[in-house]
Amino acid sequence: MKLSRWLPCLDWSQSYDRSSAAQDGLAALIVTLMLIPQSLAYAMLAGLPPVTGLYASIVPLLAYALFGSSRTLAVGPVAVVSLMTAASLAPLFPAGSAEYIGAAMLLALMSGLLLALMAVLRLGFLANFLSHPVVSGFISASGILIAVGQLKHLLGVSASGESLPQILPQLWQNLPKSHWPTLLIGLLSLAWLWWSRARLKALLQRLGLSAQSAGNLAKAGPVLAIVAAIVAVTLLQLDQLGVRVVGAIPQGLPGLTLPTLDLNLALQLLPAAVLISLVGFVESVSVGQTLAAKRRQRIEPDNELLGLGAANLGAAFSGGFPVTGGFARSVVNHDAGAQTPMAGVFTAAGIALSVMLLTPLLHNLPQAVLAATIIVAVLSLVDLSSLRRTWRYSRQDGTAQLATLLGVLLIGVEAGILIGVALSLLLFLWRTSQPHMAVVGQVPGSEHFRNVERFAVIESPSVLSLRVDESLYFPNARYLEDRIGELIASRPQVRHLVLMCSGVNLIDASALESLEAIVERLHTAGVQLHLSEVKGPVMDQLRRSSFLEQFGGQVFISQFQALKALAPQIAFETLGQGSYRADSTVQFTRKTP
Amino acid sequence: MKLSRWLPCLDWSQSYDRSSAAQDGLAALIVTLMLIPQSLAYAMLAGLPPVTGLYASIVPLLAYALFGSSRTLAVGPVAVVSLMTAASLAPLFPAGSAEYIGAAMLLALMSGLLLALMAVLRLGFLANFLSHPVVSGFISASGILIAVGQLKHLLGVSASGESLPQILPQLWQNLPKSHWPTLLIGLLSLAWLWWSRARLKALLQRLGLSAQSAGNLAKAGPVLAIVAAIVAVTLLQLDQLGVRVVGAIPQGLPGLTLPTLDLNLALQLLPAAVLISLVGFVESVSVGQTLAAKRRQRIEPDNELLGLGAANLGAAFSGGFPVTGGFARSVVNHDAGAQTPMAGVFTAAGIALSVMLLTPLLHNLPQAVLAATIIVAVLSLVDLSSLRRTWRYSRQDGTAQLATLLGVLLIGVEAGILIGVALSLLLFLWRTSQPHMAVVGQVPGSEHFRNVERFAVIESPSVLSLRVDESLYFPNARYLEDRIGELIASRPQVRHLVLMCSGVNLIDASALESLEAIVERLHTAGVQLHLSEVKGPVMDQLRRSSFLEQFGGQVFISQFQALKALAPQIAFETLGQGSYRADSTVQFTRKTP
Repeated sequence: MKLSRWLPCLDWSQSYDRSSAAQDGLAALIVTLMLIPQSLAYAMLAGLPPVTGLYASIVPLLAYALFGSSRTLAVGPVAVVSLMTAASLAPLFPAGSAEYIGAAMLLALMSGLLLALMAVLRLGFLANFLSHPVVSGFISASGILIAVGQLKHLLGVSASGESLPQILPQLWQNLPKSHWPTLLIGLLSLAWLWWSRARLKALLQRLGLSAQSAGNLAKAGPVLAIVAAIVAVTLLQLDQLGVRVVGAIPQGLPGLTLPTLDLNLALQLLPAAVLISLVGFVESVSVGQTLAAKRRQRIEPDNELLGLGAANLGAAFSGGFPVTGGFARSVVNHDAGAQTPMAGVFTAAGIALSVMLLTPLLHNLPQAVLAATIIVAVLSLVDLSSLRRTWRYSRQDGTAQLATLLGVLLIGVEAGILIGVALSLLLFLWRTSQPHMAVVGQVPGSEHFRNVERFAVIESPSVLSLRVDESLYFPNARYLEDRIGELIASRPQVRHLVLMCSGVNLIDASALESLEAIVERLHTAGVQLHLSEVKGPVMDQLRRSSFLEQFGGQVFISQFQALKALAPQIAFETLGQGSYRADSTVQFTRKTP
Repeated sequence: MKLSRWLPCLDWSQSYDRSSAAQDGLAALIVTLMLIPQSLAYAMLAGLPPVTGLYASIVPLLAYALFGSSRTLAVGPVAVVSLMTAASLAPLFPAGSAEYIGAAMLLALMSGLLLALMAVLRLGFLANFLSHPVVSGFISASGILIAVGQLKHLLGVSASGESLPQILPQLWQNLPKSHWPTLLIGLLSLAWLWWSRARLKALLQRLGLSAQSAGNLAKAGPVLAIVAAIVAVTLLQLDQLGVRVVGAIPQGLPGLTLPTLDLNLALQLLPAAVLISLVGFVESVSVGQTLAAKRRQRIEPDNELLGLGAANLGAAFSGGFPVTGGFARSVVNHDAGAQTPMAGVFTAAGIALSVMLLTPLLHNLPQAVLAATIIVAVLSLVDLSSLRRTWRYSRQDGTAQLATLLGVLLIGVEAGILIGVALSLLLFLWRTSQPHMAVVGQVPGSEHFRNVERFAVIESPSVLSLRVDESLYFPNARYLEDRIGELIASRPQVRHLVLMCSGVNLIDASALESLEAIVERLHTAGVQLHLSEVKGPVMDQLRRSSFLEQFGGQVFISQFQALKALAPQIAFETLGQGSYRADSTVQFTRKTP
């Protein structure tokens, strides 16, 4: 096995040249400017001292650059994972306490180990159980929950909780106590961030900058807000008026730190760590896949697991907290022209430089500005129109999405996602437990068989052709017995029942028992069972039982063959190639009754 | 809605006549003789006073006769459910105490309510999630566990526990303390019961009885053992020697009793009540279906739920414990010629008479005889050969069966069944998350398409025909993207990809997103996606999204049509009806490489 299988950096580093370095450097500069306010803000969201956000943006980026397979994914603290971190730690320790910080690092450690384990055991498929509607509902709800949770910083009041029913009443109650200078700073920041996001680029272009530079410069909008706010607080001594500021931030790089190594605590945090790992992985992989597809590159899920695992382990041992690939900053990184993960290395260097030099300047940064940064960032995650689309497409998927959304908003992030996953599994199983079955007949002039209720088709009175649109397995084994009993009871002329197995991808042991029972009951009613269009893997499995020798019927390669053998008196008008109508009028026209 | 929909007794009671009554009466007599020792024994197994077994065989039988739909199912205490009752109550209260008895009635009450609720909400399909391998493994393991658990009564020592690792060491340790007179009685009973079960009928026939009467009389073997043992204990005063006997049994019918109505206790017992209800229902329905099929009758799952629910409610309010339909006694009832549930009413009358008259005579009945009765009854439930058969047929089903078996034996009944159910679901999901996909080609001389690796088929170089043998849904949505990416990458000539959807029974919202992503990626590679053989329900759903308008390809009614339209240059040798070879040599012959 090649070493580069596990270290994709060996591949791209060989052809790394000055032009790539220049592009990576520019992208890194922009991402760094974007990452500084976000890191501080997401640390605050996670209930941690702001500096931990910067710490979590250094070593994890280096670790991902070594092991990750995406060329342009930008790793670091992200909103949803920070929210999940806070939700799992807040009930245990006071926010910001030493125990809290140690537990956050433990969470990163466990998340890193879980991701690495999933890579080694090739368990990446587990992430697939977070269905798209569940993830979408989860992210929208998290966005709303985060935005509402930040309102307290904007208002300068206190309110805590993990769901809307906990937070909203406190906010309402404390509304009269709002701190006006804080609120003013917050609203001004919000207005500026919104405006700069929507309009700044166009304005800069009108001022003569190229689209590219204008776009890059506009990304610095949040940094400008921070600088302006710090200047304002310092000049007007607003902190004396009660505007809460970030305060003293330790200067210098993080040392090697050890997470709290407490087995009981680890067991308590395990469910949260599993969810954080899965959600982080899903979010990161979908960003990575989208960006890779744009440049016709590929990402390897196993390498992504390893990359994110290494990033989280890095966070655990350098004073950080759980991280993953972020959507907005990866897109920025990609659009700014990043070529390789070296951009991440440069970004890490940029953040490290900031930690060493800039932290004293951040003392007077108002928390309200960070809150505004978070609110603007997360509200772009909220996409309620997708709920309507999903509901329209499938009631089941829509239900799962709505349940996840409401679960997160009303109960909390972990409960919400668990409800969503459980519900999507249950709804799927419920659905397959009562599979669609269609009596089929021959489409005139073809060898094709379709539903008698949808198409004008030819039926034989003595041969019943039944298509089962589901794998035959334990949730529906008994249902099959019931339905076949009913069908045969209502058709006394039938002598042969051909089960068309084109939709049967599995016959498990329970269904095999049911088939044996069906054969026996049909025999007493003078009906013989046959199978048609049995797929290879299913056939292989049936051969390992005695069913095929004992059921007394035949296995036909196609439904057409079955009818030819069992009902030769029916005139099958198989037309030659030339005379077949290309514009087949029977295609999906409902049969007129 | 007709009243007889919910009261099947209204149907059969209208045509009830003297001849049916005579047959029901005879069957009831035999079942009563069989039920007396079993009721006492299963009460002991459940950790309850023996008389509760008799109580549980009166009112529940009347209730089932009113609501049940099986003509010949015999309801009462059964081994597996008694074991589950003991397993759920033993950790909470001392066996046989007033609290224990009240809790057992509460369990019956909850089980009755749950079954009735399942009937009303039509949730009978939930029982299907107990797959056949899981139920089979569970029943075999329960049989072993029960038999081992009864050895203490045979040896006259004490040993308790809910799994083999708990029971076996105690038995081993206490073996030297075995009570020889008890052991002698136990072994003699065992020998007699085994012999009478295997040989008594033949002997009686040789003595001149008809096969029918000999069979009926042989069923009284256990009663004879009881009578002989009581006589021996009374004459030899064996109870003075330390042979444990049943002791004083209250005489007379049970009054109206109230279960312990304690909400906390009810919550604690809820998981056990759910499992008892489901297992009891599955066991009972499979017996009922088998017997009904023999006489071409039908049972209605919803009526069965209601019948068993009523039976358990009856048990709850007449001093009993959870009951269900028993396999052995239902077969006896059926074979003895029972025509209607009136046989159950007669049986209830017989047991009631016994409680009023015979209980004083049972004082000297040795517990070892009851233990022998249980052991002989449950060992017939053990069927380890089915494990081998299942394993041979399917590794997944075999794994689920083995895990259930070992879980029950090594951990306990509830853990075992939960492990089994969870594992069968997980294995199914794991399997569908990596579905079988086959590149298919045209079977020469037909319109049928099969796997290119299994059949000698015709392929087009520019049109890739891909059959996906699974519904497209969230566990495999991402896998589909990966596989299609690989296939297209390795076939640069391909311009059209036709996804043959004969095995696709569902496309959920996650898979729809994946399809959209696939279409986009294929477009950039110059490949167009098409669909063929899309089933009606799937097509209906796709129409509710914008996919069909946007994907740019066509939906063909069959794979043959697709190839005709997209690769007309390939010579399709569609042969006429007359020239098709009936003995198609391509049927399931592996393609020679």
